[in-house]
Amino acid sequence: MRNLSSLFHKCSVLSKLLPVVVTPRRLPHQLQQWGSNKIHRKIKIPNPLREIIMADPKIEEILAPLRASVKEQGDLVRKLKEEKAPEIDVKKAVAELKARKKVLEDKELALAPTEESFDRAKMEDLIKRRFFYDQSFAIYGGITGQFDFGPMGCALKSNMIQLWRKYFILHEQMLEVDCSILTPEPVLKASGHVERFADLMTKDVKSGECFRLDHLIKAHLEKIKSEKNTKPELKAEIEDILVKLDGMTADEMAALMKRFEMKSPISGNELTPPIEFNLMFNTQIGPSGLIKGFLRPETAQGIFVNFKRLLEFNQGRLPFAAAQIGNSFRNEISPRSGLLRVREFTMCEIEHFCDSKDHPKFEAVKDTKMLLYSADNQEQGRPAEIVTIGEAVARGMVNNETLGYFMARIHLYLLAVGIDANKLRFRQHMGNEMAHYACDCWDAECLSSYGWIECVGCADRSAYDLTQHTKATGVRLAAEKKLPAPKQIVVVEAVANKAAIGKAFKKDAKVINDTLTAMDNASLDQLQKELNAEGAYNLITPNGEFKLTADLVSVKKSEKTIHVEEIIPSVIEPSFGVGRILYCLLEHNFKMREGDEQRTYFSLPATVAPMKCAVLPLSGNAEFQPFVRELSQELISADVSHKVDDSSGSIGRRYARTDELGVPYAITVDFDTTKEPHTVTLRERDSMSQVRLPLADVPNVVRDLSNSKISWAHVEGKYPKFEQQETKGAAA
Amino acid sequence: MRNLSSLFHKCSVLSKLLPVVVTPRRLPHQLQQWGSNKIHRKIKIPNPLREIIMADPKIEEILAPLRASVKEQGDLVRKLKEEKAPEIDVKKAVAELKARKKVLEDKELALAPTEESFDRAKMEDLIKRRFFYDQSFAIYGGITGQFDFGPMGCALKSNMIQLWRKYFILHEQMLEVDCSILTPEPVLKASGHVERFADLMTKDVKSGECFRLDHLIKAHLEKIKSEKNTKPELKAEIEDILVKLDGMTADEMAALMKRFEMKSPISGNELTPPIEFNLMFNTQIGPSGLIKGFLRPETAQGIFVNFKRLLEFNQGRLPFAAAQIGNSFRNEISPRSGLLRVREFTMCEIEHFCDSKDHPKFEAVKDTKMLLYSADNQEQGRPAEIVTIGEAVARGMVNNETLGYFMARIHLYLLAVGIDANKLRFRQHMGNEMAHYACDCWDAECLSSYGWIECVGCADRSAYDLTQHTKATGVRLAAEKKLPAPKQIVVVEAVANKAAIGKAFKKDAKVINDTLTAMDNASLDQLQKELNAEGAYNLITPNGEFKLTADLVSVKKSEKTIHVEEIIPSVIEPSFGVGRILYCLLEHNFKMREGDEQRTYFSLPATVAPMKCAVLPLSGNAEFQPFVRELSQELISADVSHKVDDSSGSIGRRYARTDELGVPYAITVDFDTTKEPHTVTLRERDSMSQVRLPLADVPNVVRDLSNSKISWAHVEGKYPKFEQQETKGAAA
Repeated sequence: MRNLSSLFHKCSVLSKLLPVVVTPRRLPHQLQQWGSNKIHRKIKIPNPLREIIMADPKIEEILAPLRASVKEQGDLVRKLKEEKAPEIDVKKAVAELKARKKVLEDKELALAPTEESFDRAKMEDLIKRRFFYDQSFAIYGGITGQFDFGPMGCALKSNMIQLWRKYFILHEQMLEVDCSILTPEPVLKASGHVERFADLMTKDVKSGECFRLDHLIKAHLEKIKSEKNTKPELKAEIEDILVKLDGMTADEMAALMKRFEMKSPISGNELTPPIEFNLMFNTQIGPSGLIKGFLRPETAQGIFVNFKRLLEFNQGRLPFAAAQIGNSFRNEISPRSGLLRVREFTMCEIEHFCDSKDHPKFEAVKDTKMLLYSADNQEQGRPAEIVTIGEAVARGMVNNETLGYFMARIHLYLLAVGIDANKLRFRQHMGNEMAHYACDCWDAECLSSYGWIECVGCADRSAYDLTQHTKATGVRLAAEKKLPAPKQIVVVEAVANKAAIGKAFKKDAKVINDTLTAMDNASLDQLQKELNAEGAYNLITPNGEFKLTADLVSVKKSEKTIHVEEIIPSVIEPSFGVGRILYCLLEHNFKMREGDEQRTYFSLPATVAPMKCAVLPLSGNAEFQPFVRELSQELISADVSHKVDDSSGSIGRRYARTDELGVPYAITVDFDTTKEPHTVTLRERDSMSQVRLPLADVPNVVRDLSNSKISWAHVEGKYPKFEQQETKGAAA
Repeated sequence: MRNLSSLFHKCSVLSKLLPVVVTPRRLPHQLQQWGSNKIHRKIKIPNPLREIIMADPKIEEILAPLRASVKEQGDLVRKLKEEKAPEIDVKKAVAELKARKKVLEDKELALAPTEESFDRAKMEDLIKRRFFYDQSFAIYGGITGQFDFGPMGCALKSNMIQLWRKYFILHEQMLEVDCSILTPEPVLKASGHVERFADLMTKDVKSGECFRLDHLIKAHLEKIKSEKNTKPELKAEIEDILVKLDGMTADEMAALMKRFEMKSPISGNELTPPIEFNLMFNTQIGPSGLIKGFLRPETAQGIFVNFKRLLEFNQGRLPFAAAQIGNSFRNEISPRSGLLRVREFTMCEIEHFCDSKDHPKFEAVKDTKMLLYSADNQEQGRPAEIVTIGEAVARGMVNNETLGYFMARIHLYLLAVGIDANKLRFRQHMGNEMAHYACDCWDAECLSSYGWIECVGCADRSAYDLTQHTKATGVRLAAEKKLPAPKQIVVVEAVANKAAIGKAFKKDAKVINDTLTAMDNASLDQLQKELNAEGAYNLITPNGEFKLTADLVSVKKSEKTIHVEEIIPSVIEPSFGVGRILYCLLEHNFKMREGDEQRTYFSLPATVAPMKCAVLPLSGNAEFQPFVRELSQELISADVSHKVDDSSGSIGRRYARTDELGVPYAITVDFDTTKEPHTVTLRERDSMSQVRLPLADVPNVVRDLSNSKISWAHVEGKYPKFEQQETKGAAA
C-alpha cells in the first residue's frame, strides 16, 4: 500500500524528487517563512552537459568504480525480477540500487566543471523585493506552501501559459477544456486517488502536531550521524538507512521510530505510529453536507470524464489531444523549497488519445538533440547521453514516436521560455518508480540549486483511466475503429424475461436487468453452466444477490457481422508544473553584472518577460511628458506591455531597476527627442548596448523583437549605435 | 443580520437578481440536469433601448399610473429616512417600493416593442451538442451548479479574458496578481464573509434534505395561489408577500412557514426553522486539521492583503489599480439557470486604489452614451435614460469621475465582446440594497431570457476592506501622501518604563508594551486622567487586564513637523462575472438563418470567437491535402486559431457546422486552388458572402480581420466576389 502510494506520487509533476531537507524548528501551527532557510553561501552549479561532452578521462577514472557498483546492483535487480523473486527481495535490491545511483550522481555533480556560481539568497531577495511572488497572507502570518504572484510573477506566468497555448493547443490543434475544480468523491475513487494518494505522517500525541514521517526520520538520523561520539559502524548503517528510506513501508519506518526512540523534535512528546494522510483537500458540495468532494489533485481527470463529449466533438475520430490549464491542490504535510512543493499550483496537462503510437509529425522533430537518461543507463551506472529523439526511438530507448514527439515538443517549449539547455535532461522512470497507471514515463528535469527538479512529466498512461471510469459508471469510454474488413463474431448475451422478472422482483427488476446486460463473456458462460446444472443462478447486483431461475433468464449465442471494433485508446500525458518551470527559469536567468555583484538582473527571453519595455524620461522635465504619453499610447495600440518609469533617480538607477524586473528593452526620452526628427534611444538589457531610432518606429520594433520576428543584431544593424547616455544619465 | 447577509450577497457579481424560479422536484441528492427545465416556447426579447428612444405616448399612458404609484412610495421612503423612522418601518416601505417597481418594470418589458424571438431550448441544444459547456461529471450523475467548458466554450472564455487583459491590464497599466484560492479563516473573518456571507435554508427533519428558504416559500405560495378554490383576497395577499419576500427577515419567513403549514415538498416531512447557511466551502489546510480555511468567495481579498507590496511596487504612489483573474467558489443552496448561478466561477476583478476620485483619462470617455438607471429614477418611477457618462457625472447622477470612467470602460468592453448595446444598462443600487462595504454601486446588467442579469458590478468600496484588515492584523494598510506644506502636529504617546514593566510582568511585558504603543489619542487621554486621579490605570490587552502604576507608564506630549500624511485609499471595484457575460453573449448572438429555423449559429465577434477560421477541402480528393496542410501551417505561424474540417459531408453542411461553432471565416480549398495562381475562397459567416483570394494572402487577411485591423467590407472591396461554390459544394 505504502509502496503504491509512493509510486503514485512519484510520477506526478509535483513529486518528491527533491533532496530531503530538515524542516526547521517551528512553533505549532505557526508558519515558516519561505526563504528563511536561506543558503547564503554561493552554490556551484555544475554544467552536466559539458561534463558529458568533454568527458574527462581523469574524472571517469574516479567514477569508474561507482559506475561498476551501480551496474552490479542493476544486474542483480534484473536477475531477481527475471527469477520472479519474492517482492520484498526485489524491493530491497531496488533500494540498494537507488542508493548506489545516488552516490554516483552526487559524485558526478561534484566533479563536473563549474562555470558559474549562484547566490540563492540574493535571487530570493530580488524576487521578494520586486514582488515576483511572495508568501500568501503574510500580514496574517502566512501559510506554508501558498504563494501569491505579484505583477511581475503573474505576467511572467501568464506569458509562459500563452506561449504554451501556442506551442501545444494552437500548434497541435488540441481541444482545450476548462473543468470544475471541486470533484465529487466517486470520480477520485475510480481514479485511485481516494485510496492511494497519501503520504505517511506521525503526530505528537499531546499537541497533535504533524510531521511527515520520512522527513522526521531523516532529520533524527542525520542528527545522530553528526554527533561526535557516534560509532563509525552506526554512521555507516545510518547512511545506508537514509538512502533506502524513500522506498520503505510503514512498518519498516515504524520499526526505525522504535529502534531509535524517536520523539517529537519540538516538544519531546511521544509520537503516534505511522498514519496514512490523504493529500487531497476535502469539503462538502451543497448544503446538506452529504456530497463529499475534493479539490482536484490534478487536472487530468476532468478530461477523462469528458472523453465521450470530446470524442464526439472530434467527430468520433482518433487520435486527438485534449488539454487543460488550471489549478490543482495537494495538502502537503510539510511544504517547502519555495515554489517547488506547494499546496496550490497551476498545471498544464495534455491527454493525447490514440490507437496507434506512430506520430505523423514525428519527422519534423526527429533531429532534435536531447540529453536522455534512460532507465537502462541508470541501472547500468552509465551517464545520461545526448541523442536525437529520432535515434532514441529507433533504438527503442524511447518506446514510441508519440512519446518521442511530445518529449521533443516539451524540450523545445522549455528552451523557448528560457530554460538553459545545459541544465535540462529527460530521465526515464525505472520500473519500480512508475505510477500504478503508467507503462512508460520520462520526466523533463531542470538542474537548480535544489538539484534536478522534475518540471514536466511525460507518461504513457495506457488505457488505465478510461477503463477505471468505465468500470465505475457503466458508461463505455471507448472509440470505434473501422475494421479493414467486416468480421463475423459470436455474440453471447443474457436474455431476460423482463415481464417475469418485473413481477418477481418489483423495484429490483431494473438493477437485475442492468446487471444481466453488463455481464461479460466469462460470467455468461458461468450463467449458462449453472442454469444447465442447477436450473438457477445467483446474480450479484449492487442491490444484493438474487436467485434467477431458468424461466427468468437464458443465454443466447448468435453470429453477427461487425464493421467497427470498439477500442479504449491509449493516453500519452505530458503534464507541466508551471510554478516549477517558472522557478527554474528564474534560477537559470539570474545574472550579475560583471564586476558589480549588487547589480543583479533576470535575462528572461522577451517572449515571456513580464513586460516588453520600459519608457524612461531622462528627467522630470515637463517637455518630455507629451512624448512619453504618446509613446505609451502607441505601445498599447501595438499590444506591447510596458512600464513608464518617471520616478526620480538617475537614468542608470532606473535602468538597473528595469533590469531587475527582467524587462528586455528600455526606451529613453531625452532632449533630442523633443527636436525634429523625434528620436529616442533603445537599450537591450543583456548587452546594455543602445541604438538611436525614430520615435515612430519604436512600437513595431519592440513588438517584433518580443515576438522573435527580428533579432537585436538586426536592430543594431539598422539603426546607429548610441553611446553617451548611460554616463550622461548618471551625471544628470 | 439576515438583512445584512442579503445585502452583502447582492452587491457581488453572482447575486440573486434573477427572477426566482421554482426548483423542480427531485430525488434527494440526485442531480438536476441543467436545461431540463427547458423553455420550449419562444421568448419575446423586448428591446428596451428602442422603447426608451421612441417612447410611445400610448404606452406611456398605460405606464403613467404605475410610475405614479412607484413615485408615491419612493417619496414615502425618503420621508421616513429623513425623519429617521424606526428601521422596521423603513424596511417595510422599501419592500413595498420594490414591489411597485417590479410591477412597473414587468409592464414596461411587456409593452416594449419586440423585434426578435429567442428559443432558449434550441440554443441550449446547440451549446450541449457542440460542447460549448455542459454539466460537470455527467457520467457520474453530475453535480448541480458545476459546468465544464468544452473546446469552444473554453476558447471563447479564454479569448474574452485575453481581451479583458488588453482592455484593462494593458490599457490602464494595472498590476495583475495571481493569489491563493485557499484562504485561512482570519482573513475572511476580517472581510466580514465568515459572519455575513450566508443564505437562509430549511431542512427536512427526517431526510436532511435542504431547501433554500425563499425558493421554498415562493413555490409553496405560488401553488396555493394557482389553486382554483383559493379566495381572491388570499391570492392578493400572497402576491403582496411574494414581492416582499426578498427583504424578509428569518423571523418573518419562519412566521410564513408556520402560517401556511409548509412541509417538505418532496417527502411531506416537517421542516426545521430557518437556518443560516454560510455559502463558503470550508476545508482544513495542513495535516493537523487545525487551520481552518475556505475557498475564496471572491478574488478581491487577495489584492487587499497584498496592498502593501503592491503600493511598494508602485513606488509608494497613488492612484494605482490591481487586478486579478481567477476562480471563486460559492456553495449555493440551489444552483440553477445554467451558468448564471453556479458554485465555481471565473471572475475578473479590479481594485482601483485612489485618494482623489478625479480621473485623468475621464476626458477620453466622457462622450460615451450609456443607458443609466439611477436609484433616483428607480425610486421615482421614471425609466432608465440614455446619457453620456460626462453628463451623468456632471449632474451628480454618477458620484465621481473614477466611477464614471470605469463604467464607460466596462460598457466599451462589453460591446467589444459582443453584448448587444440594446440589451445593456447600468443600474444603480438603491440605498437599501447596497452591500455593507459599499457607498455607491452600479451594475452592468444584460437583458436575457432570464430577465436583466447582473454581469459586472462597479462598486465604490471606500476604505472598508483595508481598514478591516488593518484592524485584524495591526499592519497599517495605508499610503503616505505628501502634504502641500509641512505641518506642525502634537504627538501624544505613552512612555513605558520598559525595564520596570519587564520586571513586574515578565512574559506579559511584550504585549503590554505593544498595547501601549498602539493606543489612540482618546485612550491616551483616559490613561493620563486615571494616572492623575488614581495613580494607576487598568490596561486591557489580548493577554488580559494589567494594572499599571505611574512609575511604569507616563504620557508624553510633543510637537512634531510632518511632511506627509497617512491616508487609507478609497477603492473602486469593477468586478466581472465571466460566465454570466459569456452566457448573455451567447444569447445575444444566437441567430437563425432566414427561412431555415434549423440552421442556427452564433454571430460572435471574431475577436472572441472560439476559432478564427475553418479550413475546408471541397472534398476528400487527395490533391487538396498538401494545400490544406500548408495553409494550416501558415495559419499557425500567424497565430490564427483554426479547425481543419476534412470530414465527409457537403461543403454546405460543413459551413453550417462551422457557423454553429461561431467561426467567423471559412476557407475552402477547391480544384482551382490546385492550379496556378493558387487561390481559395474566403466566406464570412454572418453575410455568407465569399471572395476569391490568393492562398498566400489568407493568413494575414484572417489575422487582421480577427484583430479588427481590417473590416469584411475592406476585404470585399479588395478581392473579387465568389458566388458559385455553396451550390457547387452542395452538388459535390
